[in-house]
Amino acid sequence: MIYFDNSATTKPYKEVIDSFMKVTTEYFGNPSSLHRMGGEAEKLLNIARKQVAELLEVRPSELIFTSGGTESNNLAVKGAALMHRNRGKHIVTTAIEHASIKETFHQLEELGFHVTYLPVDREGRVQVKDVEQALSGDTILVSVMHVNNEVGTIQPIEKIGNLLKNYPKILFHVDNIQGIGKVPLNLQTSSIDLCSFSAHKFHGLKGTGFLYVRDGVKISPLLTGGDQERKHRSGTENVAGIVALAKALRLTLENEKKLLTRLQQVKETIVHGISELEEVIIHTPAQGSAPHIINFSIKGFKAEVFVHALGEKDIFVSTTSACSSKKQSASSTLMAMGVNEQIAKSAIRISLSYDNTTEEALFVVKAIKEMVNQLKEVMN
Amino acid sequence: MIYFDNSATTKPYKEVIDSFMKVTTEYFGNPSSLHRMGGEAEKLLNIARKQVAELLEVRPSELIFTSGGTESNNLAVKGAALMHRNRGKHIVTTAIEHASIKETFHQLEELGFHVTYLPVDREGRVQVKDVEQALSGDTILVSVMHVNNEVGTIQPIEKIGNLLKNYPKILFHVDNIQGIGKVPLNLQTSSIDLCSFSAHKFHGLKGTGFLYVRDGVKISPLLTGGDQERKHRSGTENVAGIVALAKALRLTLENEKKLLTRLQQVKETIVHGISELEEVIIHTPAQGSAPHIINFSIKGFKAEVFVHALGEKDIFVSTTSACSSKKQSASSTLMAMGVNEQIAKSAIRISLSYDNTTEEALFVVKAIKEMVNQLKEVMN
Repeated sequence: MIYFDNSATTKPYKEVIDSFMKVTTEYFGNPSSLHRMGGEAEKLLNIARKQVAELLEVRPSELIFTSGGTESNNLAVKGAALMHRNRGKHIVTTAIEHASIKETFHQLEELGFHVTYLPVDREGRVQVKDVEQALSGDTILVSVMHVNNEVGTIQPIEKIGNLLKNYPKILFHVDNIQGIGKVPLNLQTSSIDLCSFSAHKFHGLKGTGFLYVRDGVKISPLLTGGDQERKHRSGTENVAGIVALAKALRLTLENEKKLLTRLQQVKETIVHGISELEEVIIHTPAQGSAPHIINFSIKGFKAEVFVHALGEKDIFVSTTSACSSKKQSASSTLMAMGVNEQIAKSAIRISLSYDNTTEEALFVVKAIKEMVNQLKEVMN
Repeated sequence: MIYFDNSATTKPYKEVIDSFMKVTTEYFGNPSSLHRMGGEAEKLLNIARKQVAELLEVRPSELIFTSGGTESNNLAVKGAALMHRNRGKHIVTTAIEHASIKETFHQLEELGFHVTYLPVDREGRVQVKDVEQALSGDTILVSVMHVNNEVGTIQPIEKIGNLLKNYPKILFHVDNIQGIGKVPLNLQTSSIDLCSFSAHKFHGLKGTGFLYVRDGVKISPLLTGGDQERKHRSGTENVAGIVALAKALRLTLENEKKLLTRLQQVKETIVHGISELEEVIIHTPAQGSAPHIINFSIKGFKAEVFVHALGEKDIFVSTTSACSSKKQSASSTLMAMGVNEQIAKSAIRISLSYDNTTEEALFVVKAIKEMVNQLKEVMN
């Protein structure tokens, strides 16, 4: 099996599952309980929070554990907009965000907010000057993803953060779900107020994630109740899942240090290999893109056909983001980049992890080439 | 160890953890992915949904998997209120709900809704006539818990449901987080529109739960994005957690059939035993209460002292609900029942599971009696 769909979800590390097992079996107390079993669970939770904070160079008090990336994005955007709605009703995002941002902005539009959806250039990149032009005295929130989940383009987060330093009224949210462990991002120097993460994208477990909320930043809770997570997110903490998340993050960041060069080589091998096919158009920009995502179209062939044909050979890739893959429409990210609809409907995404090797890359390139040639013969 | 804090959280069954392990290791695909690994995960998800539906005698399409009880309650109440806000602004609940309902109603009050908090009698029970009197042409939602989490009183859900049949505009939500597997409740015959469940209260895993939404009932999503769970709850599904939830529910309902009589005997043993102490006041009503909760005060003694002293003997009980146990205030449920504040601050909750035995009950009763006598000697 060759798993090249790591932007959809990753295989949990064995050590991550072992941690989950141990905690859920031996430390099942409710961290809110007064007795020793509650205290033990609370202690594990605090240790995990401290570990994640150290890995990201932030304070433990700045982390809110959630049920995943979608909740982190919803909490950040709705929480910021609803908390500060009396300061202004204008919110800004881009045309290429993940559905959990895009749909959340749509919902806020229905509630009376005004939204600017920033365009991107042909490489899928937002221009800082477009952000600046969009801002007004009514603006309270700017939300820009770090790494686009479909094409891998890296957005100029630090520059946007620097711009927003001049607008202290505006909160800056970054969706870093695809970037973490692949493309460095310093939350402090980028002046980020809110930043979303999802554990199952970095070999943690589904159903866990977190939101960075800079100390002093106020947001409305989405989930109200027992006042867990400093009142930002009520609900009994998924202690075992959070301990597993901390371990997954540590292992991923260690792999980033050790294996980033190899990952880039794997990507290069694929890009170089498929570029030899005249039918291939590569959408991922050669410069300023993440080391794990390659998006390309094979002119004249439907993407689904390829996904299924590769699946027959135990090679797993995707068409667009997993969350949108069952919709028949062309990728809105590619459309925003100016790709024509027919080409966009042929788009395939390969997304890598540190487990993938150059041998796998060569195998997949060969398989793609053979399939294109076979299909061409059938069609002629 | 004697674990008597099962209303705070339960020990996950070994079979439940095994199911989680197997799915998270072998079927880690994203159910939204088009390829075979996605399809396999989706299939497991569908099977789990069907199993839960069969166990509850509802349709698979009526179940929305969530991150737990707090999210289920928030989604039901906010989702119903926000969806139908143009039909009316009056919503009704009781004075004794869990924090995840109470605080959610408070948040809706801030957003302009009018709330009636129904009183309860000395046994902690809502009167159907009070529900009826509260209703007006502006009412859109009534939310009443099935089994109170602190004292175990069973609410007249079926009667309230029958009343609400005459008000087709009003949605009926029931928090059944403490009742499931302990006190039968038929969702159909009780005319329930929305019903909340949390897996870690029935030996499933933390971070998983579900909301029953009767077919045809519309609610606004809390989490928007990839349109999972029929657009009611976006976010990559926690497949392994959901499969584990289905198993936990099946095992719990099997235990309910086999072991309910024993559970009642365990409860009786405790009630009978501690009643012999003249300092004890039992708050849980003798009739119409759940078989697993006993709430009592030991006059003249602070509850925390007892919780910690029992903890020293490896016996785990609680003061009030886990979510509220670190607040210093007296239980609002007991206060609503007319218990005076001093007595309420002495309240201890014992909450049982089907794993508990009469031997454990006798041991705990003995320990409590010894402790009371020792403390009395010290105080005299």
